[in-house]
Amino acid sequence: MSHVLILGGDGYLGWPTAMHFSNKGYDVTVVDNYFRRDACKELDTGMLYPVPNFIERAKIWHEKTGKEIKVVIGNLTQAEVMRGLFDGNTEYSWCLNNKFTGIPETVVHYAEQPSAPYSLINYNYADITLVNNLRVTNNLMWALRDFSRDTHLIKIGTMGEYGTPNIDIEEGWIEIEHKGRKDKFLYPRQASSIYHTTKIMDTDLLWFGVRTWNLKVTDLMQGPVYGIETEESKIDERLRTIFNYDEIFGTVINRFITQAVIGYPLTVYGKGGQTRGYLNIKDTLQCVYKSSLSPAKPGQLNIFNQIMETFTVNQLAKKIHQIGIERNHEVKVNHLENPRKELEEHYYNPVFQGLSDIGVNPHYLTDQVVNEIFKIVEQFKKNIRKEVIFRGIKW
Amino acid sequence: MSHVLILGGDGYLGWPTAMHFSNKGYDVTVVDNYFRRDACKELDTGMLYPVPNFIERAKIWHEKTGKEIKVVIGNLTQAEVMRGLFDGNTEYSWCLNNKFTGIPETVVHYAEQPSAPYSLINYNYADITLVNNLRVTNNLMWALRDFSRDTHLIKIGTMGEYGTPNIDIEEGWIEIEHKGRKDKFLYPRQASSIYHTTKIMDTDLLWFGVRTWNLKVTDLMQGPVYGIETEESKIDERLRTIFNYDEIFGTVINRFITQAVIGYPLTVYGKGGQTRGYLNIKDTLQCVYKSSLSPAKPGQLNIFNQIMETFTVNQLAKKIHQIGIERNHEVKVNHLENPRKELEEHYYNPVFQGLSDIGVNPHYLTDQVVNEIFKIVEQFKKNIRKEVIFRGIKW
Repeated sequence: MSHVLILGGDGYLGWPTAMHFSNKGYDVTVVDNYFRRDACKELDTGMLYPVPNFIERAKIWHEKTGKEIKVVIGNLTQAEVMRGLFDGNTEYSWCLNNKFTGIPETVVHYAEQPSAPYSLINYNYADITLVNNLRVTNNLMWALRDFSRDTHLIKIGTMGEYGTPNIDIEEGWIEIEHKGRKDKFLYPRQASSIYHTTKIMDTDLLWFGVRTWNLKVTDLMQGPVYGIETEESKIDERLRTIFNYDEIFGTVINRFITQAVIGYPLTVYGKGGQTRGYLNIKDTLQCVYKSSLSPAKPGQLNIFNQIMETFTVNQLAKKIHQIGIERNHEVKVNHLENPRKELEEHYYNPVFQGLSDIGVNPHYLTDQVVNEIFKIVEQFKKNIRKEVIFRGIKW
Repeated sequence: MSHVLILGGDGYLGWPTAMHFSNKGYDVTVVDNYFRRDACKELDTGMLYPVPNFIERAKIWHEKTGKEIKVVIGNLTQAEVMRGLFDGNTEYSWCLNNKFTGIPETVVHYAEQPSAPYSLINYNYADITLVNNLRVTNNLMWALRDFSRDTHLIKIGTMGEYGTPNIDIEEGWIEIEHKGRKDKFLYPRQASSIYHTTKIMDTDLLWFGVRTWNLKVTDLMQGPVYGIETEESKIDERLRTIFNYDEIFGTVINRFITQAVIGYPLTVYGKGGQTRGYLNIKDTLQCVYKSSLSPAKPGQLNIFNQIMETFTVNQLAKKIHQIGIERNHEVKVNHLENPRKELEEHYYNPVFQGLSDIGVNPHYLTDQVVNEIFKIVEQFKKNIRKEVIFRGIKW
């Protein structure tokens, strides 16, 4: 049986990914240090509904499906915690069978501070972001080098690494012809936050490891994810993923729907012409799963642009406004002074073909999909705290 | 009077730079935490001669010239140490006048772990390198953002950021035409060590700061430096810079000359066709000084390729072999199995024009210059420890 190790397994994407692999019959080990939950507490951000703790989640999953997800509560910036997952010295915080599952065939790396505004609150949060993200990636790279160069690493990158260049965005690589000579390079990237810059750094670091030690790495350049429910969370409501709707950890579609439900004017930053690629949380799971079936070869860094369709912020606001009105909410759209330093009108033409080529079938942001998210958010309307929605973190 | 702050002021380049600015009449503050000396002790690397401690150096400088270099012994990975240098809360470890000199007009940032082999000893040294280099640069960037966006930062990068691409290496930037559209990017970089990769990360981080907060940054992509003596060190032998001749902290020309003096076969890695750009330590001082006179504008990242001429490793070995023989040393050349993962034969055509354009006049690696280095190394022949020269750190 194949063993999948999921780093950051308690987060918005980590936990649904863990259930997804477990449901397909994989041995799954998840690791997390509650970074996200602690940050939510510290920064007083809202969660749409409470979720059971990491161990409780695994127990509920077992109770409902008979399947075991082994849980390690540990901080992966500490090398010994990371290395224990490969050399067998790990101690499970919860499991049925205490025996070491063995070296994973696939590692999915979500164990990063994932928020742009968080990384720009002040110098301290910038430091936490840089050090956490680089340390975990470095520890992981060395663990693979030292214990298992055959393990396939699937690392979640971000489309934000590319920024908004005036030329087409390729899938990770570009051939440059210059003064009559040619070479192939990582696509040159410049991001618009410190968080996104750490993802550029991750890619550069892992590319070094791939070239030097023949590691096998897939880098998924993901766009903002939306949605709540996945096939596995439907088994029991308590298995639903963490859902943030605040400016720091909430992604834009999730935020807009939450705002619509409580009559808070949708917070469009500036002109709203910012174009990005988006995907349903179900497609994150699908992309990671399909990538695990088509692993990078030794010495190969596969890069896929993990988006399914592109929208401007205005298009999203318009869609959510319309559906919100149909659902009898009082929806307004507010163009706020942009707290971010970014272009509000720009060229944007990313290629996203590789994941389709390995069998991913996109879910799109249809009215039905938006309505389904609305339905769940409406259930928890009384939990939504207006005052945490916008804080105006500027950069 | 202009105030220059030198971070990493105790190192191979930091201390000579401090004396150079002081000699020209600048107010100079230097900061260091003895990282380099402590690492030399820990790893048992050799130094050609002992040097006085950081405070003693400043005292000798004052005694000989009447000029004050204020010394702060502190760890710049700690944000409060960095910020104290801008908000006046710093406590000088040595100075004549205890009053805060004020916000610097120029900061020269050398405060990094500078060795490729060090960064690849094992996962722990990789971690130290990443965390030290990124943390210091991040703390510095935020201090500039928060206290003084008008201060000009001169950051020492490395030609190693570029690697050895099959197209010409431009000075930091490249215009890419792709599918009929154009944009200008940071030149795409891929380095062949973790240390060099941290310098790519530094550049990316500072480019974010420049774009976002209109910081003024010059990034000097420096090649391996050689030499000992500078105008200022001639004032008193005790003012000479730290000189390492081991594989970890010694740079190649300095290492080869030391090897020649004790009859240790010159350690050429692999075929020796590796081509790099080199410069005399006197030119490092000149380049930094001239850059300070032509500061980047707000929102501008100036990048200069800081090399004066290029050589293959074989050309260096041949030159040092010949001069060594003339000086009656028993010199041999040994082609070792390359402990590094790098191309031993490759295209290499870097542009290096920008620094000449702002007034730098190169010193070249003439026979006279090589002879002068030989002369000093010969004086300390008895200090040279054969066993620390090569350790075979591999990657």
